[in-house]
Amino acid sequence: MGLDIGGTKLAAGLADEAGRLLAVERGETDRGATPAEIVAALAEMAKGMCARLRAKPQAVGISYGGPADFARQTTITCHHLQGWEGIPLGRMVAAALGVERVVMDNDGNACALGEAVFGAGRGHTEMLYLTVSSGIGGGVIIGGKVYRGASSMAGEIGHTVIVPGGPECTCGRRGCLEALASGWSIARRAEEAVAAGRQPGSTLHAMAGKITAQAVAEQAEAGDGLAGEIMVETADYLGLGIAAAVNLLNPSRVVLGGGVAKAGDCLFLPLRQAVARYALAENAAAVSVVPAALGDAGGVLGAVALALA
Amino acid sequence: MGLDIGGTKLAAGLADEAGRLLAVERGETDRGATPAEIVAALAEMAKGMCARLRAKPQAVGISYGGPADFARQTTITCHHLQGWEGIPLGRMVAAALGVERVVMDNDGNACALGEAVFGAGRGHTEMLYLTVSSGIGGGVIIGGKVYRGASSMAGEIGHTVIVPGGPECTCGRRGCLEALASGWSIARRAEEAVAAGRQPGSTLHAMAGKITAQAVAEQAEAGDGLAGEIMVETADYLGLGIAAAVNLLNPSRVVLGGGVAKAGDCLFLPLRQAVARYALAENAAAVSVVPAALGDAGGVLGAVALALA
Repeated sequence: MGLDIGGTKLAAGLADEAGRLLAVERGETDRGATPAEIVAALAEMAKGMCARLRAKPQAVGISYGGPADFARQTTITCHHLQGWEGIPLGRMVAAALGVERVVMDNDGNACALGEAVFGAGRGHTEMLYLTVSSGIGGGVIIGGKVYRGASSMAGEIGHTVIVPGGPECTCGRRGCLEALASGWSIARRAEEAVAAGRQPGSTLHAMAGKITAQAVAEQAEAGDGLAGEIMVETADYLGLGIAAAVNLLNPSRVVLGGGVAKAGDCLFLPLRQAVARYALAENAAAVSVVPAALGDAGGVLGAVALALA
Repeated sequence: MGLDIGGTKLAAGLADEAGRLLAVERGETDRGATPAEIVAALAEMAKGMCARLRAKPQAVGISYGGPADFARQTTITCHHLQGWEGIPLGRMVAAALGVERVVMDNDGNACALGEAVFGAGRGHTEMLYLTVSSGIGGGVIIGGKVYRGASSMAGEIGHTVIVPGGPECTCGRRGCLEALASGWSIARRAEEAVAAGRQPGSTLHAMAGKITAQAVAEQAEAGDGLAGEIMVETADYLGLGIAAAVNLLNPSRVVLGGGVAKAGDCLFLPLRQAVARYALAENAAAVSVVPAALGDAGGVLGAVALALA
């Protein structure tokens, strides 16, 4: 069984050992609820699913949408909800579901493993995964396993400083990749471009004040010049961060998940060019940069992969 | 036995299993010689040492000063000498010395392992190593072993692009860490500062046209203001590259070797501040940034560590 606990959404899924989903159920995260209440709601959802399928999970994986202490199997904090400091999520879920084998990790690592085992990274034991959505997270796969570093903090590619002194980031620093290429940063750069009067013929001008990253990507795919330029700039920032990681780790595959990664060619074509431009020739030649394959099931299947690992 | 083959220097050393050097001999690399001639000269040196010590090496490690294909145990090329493309160095040394167990790797990986096993990284299974000298190389230690990536190209932190469109690098790209913080880049930035008339009272002005990185570091340690500023800028560039790697890999130690790393506090104090400024708080808190401990024996002891691995 895979459980996906995010700041806005919850999901539970049952899968076989090949990662085929037998059932999946989704819900909203009650932002006023305590961690115990949220775990209880998710456990209800999971138990109902098991009852309907007459299945008992052999193991449970949890993808947690925030920094996690893997060694202690506890949360560190949550950037979206209150009261999630040091919550022993693994133990709570084990007790609620009556399953012994429970493994939790942050969503970057879970999704990385899910893509490596079941998705766009299959066959690649050396892989880098990025979630590019509201924030930018990541996971490092080494020898087919999640690499967590010295204190469970590996994979934080979203906070690579790309432009020193650049725009402020959620982490309090300036010019991080997340502050330049995440969903909110794309929207911000588009608003700035519109405010500066760039390409007055662009459809983005009519959306001033309410531009979203999704709208920028859609307009770019539809051929809008300004939206296309903003996606090329996004690709350039992502390319700088990814190329640094490709030089350091020499993966054979980089997988991009999250909302922004659904943008298609308007992102991936300039992104591949940027990685080739900024990485060493040998390292660039050894890697392919592709979109995630698991879509919205990435969190649940990542959790399943954790349970199977 | 450890062999160190560089563009300008050769060395051979015999060590016990604890990394204690029993003997070491050094020579110059004959720039006009073929790879076969250089291997023969090094083998002579090594055999003479074995004869004098009445020792027979159980295994031989080779630290090679250029890109190497670890899987094939061949050189890829050499940035300093001609004719080093695809040389089966491991096999040649095995034949020349009559030793079966021979392992070669590039000097970044060899020195990284040497520091991890015998030097400043002892006790740290998750470690990052940088050589900061004429170029900037590196090695990634994961689980106490060299991590080589998908095609033997991991560890190339010197080519992290720090300033897009910045000064030209030896790799043909622009704004790489190597083009901003290596020995020749420090000298270039110092010459530029002098040419621009920065701090006319600085002792660097009297050295115009022949400033070396070593002179900048010495003057900085002696309290010269401009030299100090140039070392702070160097630390800032290095800090950006190291912080990106610290976010991605979460090592518990970063070890800096090479000539520039001998600079002392004028480099390491601002470098530690820069890493703390540019890396995530948790990742920065988990890591210590220290100078290499093995000094000029780093290559030979790194090769010994390869032989023992």
